[in-house]
Amino acid sequence: METSQSIGTYLIQRLHAYGVRHVFGVPGDYVLGFFQQLVESPLQVINTCDEQGAGFAADAYARVHGLGVVCITYCVGGLKVANTTAQAFAEKSPVVVISGAPGTNERVKNPLLHHKVRDFDTQLKVFEQLTIASTVLHDPETAFREIDRVLAAALRYKRPVYIEIPRDMVSAPGLALHRPPEMQDVSDPDALSEAIREAGDMINRAKQPVIIAGIELHRFGLQDALLQLIEKTNIPVASLLLSKSVIAERHPRYLGVYEGALGYEDVRAYVEASDCLILLGAIMNDMDLGMYTANINLGRSIYATSERTSIRYHIYEGILLQDFLQRLSVANITPRETGPIPHPVMPAAFSPVPGQKVTVQRVFQRLNAFLDDTTVVIAEPGDALFGSADLFIHGHTEFLSPAYYTSMGFAVPACIGAQLANPQRRPLVIVGDGGFQMTGMELSTAVRFHLNPIVVVLNNYGYGTERPLLDGPFNDILPWQFSRIPEILGSGKGFSVETEEQLDAALQAARAYTDSFCILDIHLAPHDISPALQRMTNMLGKRVK
Amino acid sequence: METSQSIGTYLIQRLHAYGVRHVFGVPGDYVLGFFQQLVESPLQVINTCDEQGAGFAADAYARVHGLGVVCITYCVGGLKVANTTAQAFAEKSPVVVISGAPGTNERVKNPLLHHKVRDFDTQLKVFEQLTIASTVLHDPETAFREIDRVLAAALRYKRPVYIEIPRDMVSAPGLALHRPPEMQDVSDPDALSEAIREAGDMINRAKQPVIIAGIELHRFGLQDALLQLIEKTNIPVASLLLSKSVIAERHPRYLGVYEGALGYEDVRAYVEASDCLILLGAIMNDMDLGMYTANINLGRSIYATSERTSIRYHIYEGILLQDFLQRLSVANITPRETGPIPHPVMPAAFSPVPGQKVTVQRVFQRLNAFLDDTTVVIAEPGDALFGSADLFIHGHTEFLSPAYYTSMGFAVPACIGAQLANPQRRPLVIVGDGGFQMTGMELSTAVRFHLNPIVVVLNNYGYGTERPLLDGPFNDILPWQFSRIPEILGSGKGFSVETEEQLDAALQAARAYTDSFCILDIHLAPHDISPALQRMTNMLGKRVK
Repeated sequence: METSQSIGTYLIQRLHAYGVRHVFGVPGDYVLGFFQQLVESPLQVINTCDEQGAGFAADAYARVHGLGVVCITYCVGGLKVANTTAQAFAEKSPVVVISGAPGTNERVKNPLLHHKVRDFDTQLKVFEQLTIASTVLHDPETAFREIDRVLAAALRYKRPVYIEIPRDMVSAPGLALHRPPEMQDVSDPDALSEAIREAGDMINRAKQPVIIAGIELHRFGLQDALLQLIEKTNIPVASLLLSKSVIAERHPRYLGVYEGALGYEDVRAYVEASDCLILLGAIMNDMDLGMYTANINLGRSIYATSERTSIRYHIYEGILLQDFLQRLSVANITPRETGPIPHPVMPAAFSPVPGQKVTVQRVFQRLNAFLDDTTVVIAEPGDALFGSADLFIHGHTEFLSPAYYTSMGFAVPACIGAQLANPQRRPLVIVGDGGFQMTGMELSTAVRFHLNPIVVVLNNYGYGTERPLLDGPFNDILPWQFSRIPEILGSGKGFSVETEEQLDAALQAARAYTDSFCILDIHLAPHDISPALQRMTNMLGKRVK
Repeated sequence: METSQSIGTYLIQRLHAYGVRHVFGVPGDYVLGFFQQLVESPLQVINTCDEQGAGFAADAYARVHGLGVVCITYCVGGLKVANTTAQAFAEKSPVVVISGAPGTNERVKNPLLHHKVRDFDTQLKVFEQLTIASTVLHDPETAFREIDRVLAAALRYKRPVYIEIPRDMVSAPGLALHRPPEMQDVSDPDALSEAIREAGDMINRAKQPVIIAGIELHRFGLQDALLQLIEKTNIPVASLLLSKSVIAERHPRYLGVYEGALGYEDVRAYVEASDCLILLGAIMNDMDLGMYTANINLGRSIYATSERTSIRYHIYEGILLQDFLQRLSVANITPRETGPIPHPVMPAAFSPVPGQKVTVQRVFQRLNAFLDDTTVVIAEPGDALFGSADLFIHGHTEFLSPAYYTSMGFAVPACIGAQLANPQRRPLVIVGDGGFQMTGMELSTAVRFHLNPIVVVLNNYGYGTERPLLDGPFNDILPWQFSRIPEILGSGKGFSVETEEQLDAALQAARAYTDSFCILDIHLAPHDISPALQRMTNMLGKRVK
């Protein structure tokens, strides 16, 4: 005879079965019981300085590892991760938000318990806006099934979900004899066959087919399937800014990042001259489309995503992205000649000019020479991101940035999630001084859990991305002595960098020092920006006022 | 002939008319145009390190000044203040949340613009849960009226409101010849007269009437009306934890903080022995009611709030709190004898014991001797708050703490709002090391705007309030060298305190140094807690598991 396990331990067991090994969060009295269960489980609790940091770390963990978890207390914790959850929603990152809550036995007569905002379901209603599925585990008879349903939605749609556990339900037993369902979404075989036949014909008839590989290929783990398709057909492939590193950039058929008028002209021209664009898992947003300077003609496109598949202007329903990609890679498609195509320039060795002050452009040239197979680059929105578009990323899924939702404060906490998700990759964080001041002290968490990111602060004394749009005193911030942060945290190494030689020496020292984090405070002129940002702001400036 | 002003400048003009002089926020591209208008206005922009800090600062500003404003960009900024807005809602603090947004002209065909979560109204739907009124200013014909309506709701209900401005509406002209309405809520005169007559009779018949003065007396600026009532009738008055400092604590009729079994026994006994409790503007929540150990019998209570008025078990509708209090203070109530009552003990002079390590209890004794008429105390939830319950506060509205919602991370950013709202009061911030690690680096903002708070960090190496409830590694945090933060910020003075003599010397030095902030890192034993917290956790511990 089988005894039933508790609701909390079932949730932990399911997360573990889906590969989760770390849970990011901050404890609080409504969630302490569940934290205790976590400590007694195979999952490691990573408690961050602030819940915001935990939310971003869980998002990065999900991007690298396939599923991330942030666990916080009711309202005062949960509402602090509203923004990080919104980012995970917008950019399809499967994050499970687990919130403690007042016990069902405490809610009788609707008392004013601490942390309550308006009603007991206020937080639930907020997260219904920000997640793809949500539940409150208030009933032992349905709790296990609800956990199954909500976690399945996170994995099916690669979006965040919300699970609230009233504290008296954590140790309550669920239904005995429950078995998690075998979930196997399948494509409609007839629709799939017709779509593949039509797509194959269209590709074969095309003179210059081009693949645009989108972020969903990361999310669904389809990078190898993409490689297989490219290697069988020799069709050239571009990434978007959000999906950069979906394919190793040294691959001979890789064109570069396509971002309309904001990217390299040869990539734009090649992509837009295509008579058959194969868009795979791409989210068509303004940032990826170069603020809508991209010129993509759906009338000559095959456009497959996890949500729908279309060819030119007609739509196929019931086709899974992974099935479409897999079937396409074994379809009857004639291989192309491997003629010359645009291709990112391999980074040159960097020779510091003696006595020369550093510029944004030279920082990225030096970083490009620094990258290798053991680095994961994490770029904060702003010039850290725009400048990073031109970095030559070695492996796949080794570039992380919220390039569409573009929430500042992401990069430093994200490195915690990224390195725990894949300890083989040392994070290189590129962040502005403005972004660092939001969440950079989460380096404290990196120290506590023995991580060793290298943090490059592009210090231009304010919000450099906004200055070209519309400048004012609100774009200035207090200068911090970033290189002295190791003195606060009792760990790490700091470097103050003003010249190319100092930059070169600091990065060499950072590579050699692996015991803890390194932080490089790169002093830049306030109006020095990357060429990519210059193009971007010329366009955006027209729309601000 | 009159020309019409722009929607943005009308909003600014109305805020100014309501006394607002500072706006807290972080700029972003969807809100830059409005920031530009702010810079050109009489309002000063206070840009914080992170939006969370701006939200807490605006909340504190509202508590001191009557109305606060936080201004942020769409979603990536707005959703970061979900939690601070929720706190303002729960504790009745009138904060105006102003968010930039994509232009109405950009929303055609529902494109994926950056910062968008799910739909263009996702952020609005979130804030509908967290505010008392909300609007999107998408129509010049209704914009001025909508601004009037929403600001009036903030002032009427003392709750946060939400105003979203699509960026193409900022400079758009509203209706010419618009005049803000004269708002004058009035009480139902018959209901008011009957309620006052009944209340007066009940008070006159009572042997031991007691007033419990709640947070709404702060919010509606009724401290003087309360004083008048007390001085006319000699009825003793207790505060609650959330409303502490509603009356100067040296007032001879002040009993102390009533918090059920968690507070002082003589206060509890006196209050609960009353045969006529006069509850004025009190929110009856679990924290204020000593985790429901309070024993308040509604059958012998007069209970007036901004939302309703009741006497024993019947309710009067349509009575404003300010009218009720004002009419009660001139009603025919027989003055009481001024016999002896419980009363807070005046703080004694502090004599440091040579070589003695500091304890939580001794820290609060020393702080009590430090307070004077120029101090505003800001206490972070946790032992900073519980220990502060016994501080002897000199003036009224000189104690700020989110004693009901209890969001951590409040205290440091709050001191920015509090000092700007009343430059005559130097903030004394009492915060744990855990709370400081969330938002403490907002001291950067204090430096930038030439403020000089004294920050006392109760450093017990983790979440000390949770340890007695349920301990585990999740309650430990990395030790920071808090006293060295001035080195990062290039300003301020730091003190590391381990003994009573060091504490004494540091506070004297802090009082003498007024150029910038001071931070005291008070090293405490990890399990050292205040007597009040000990009582609290004995009760809470039973409910956690």
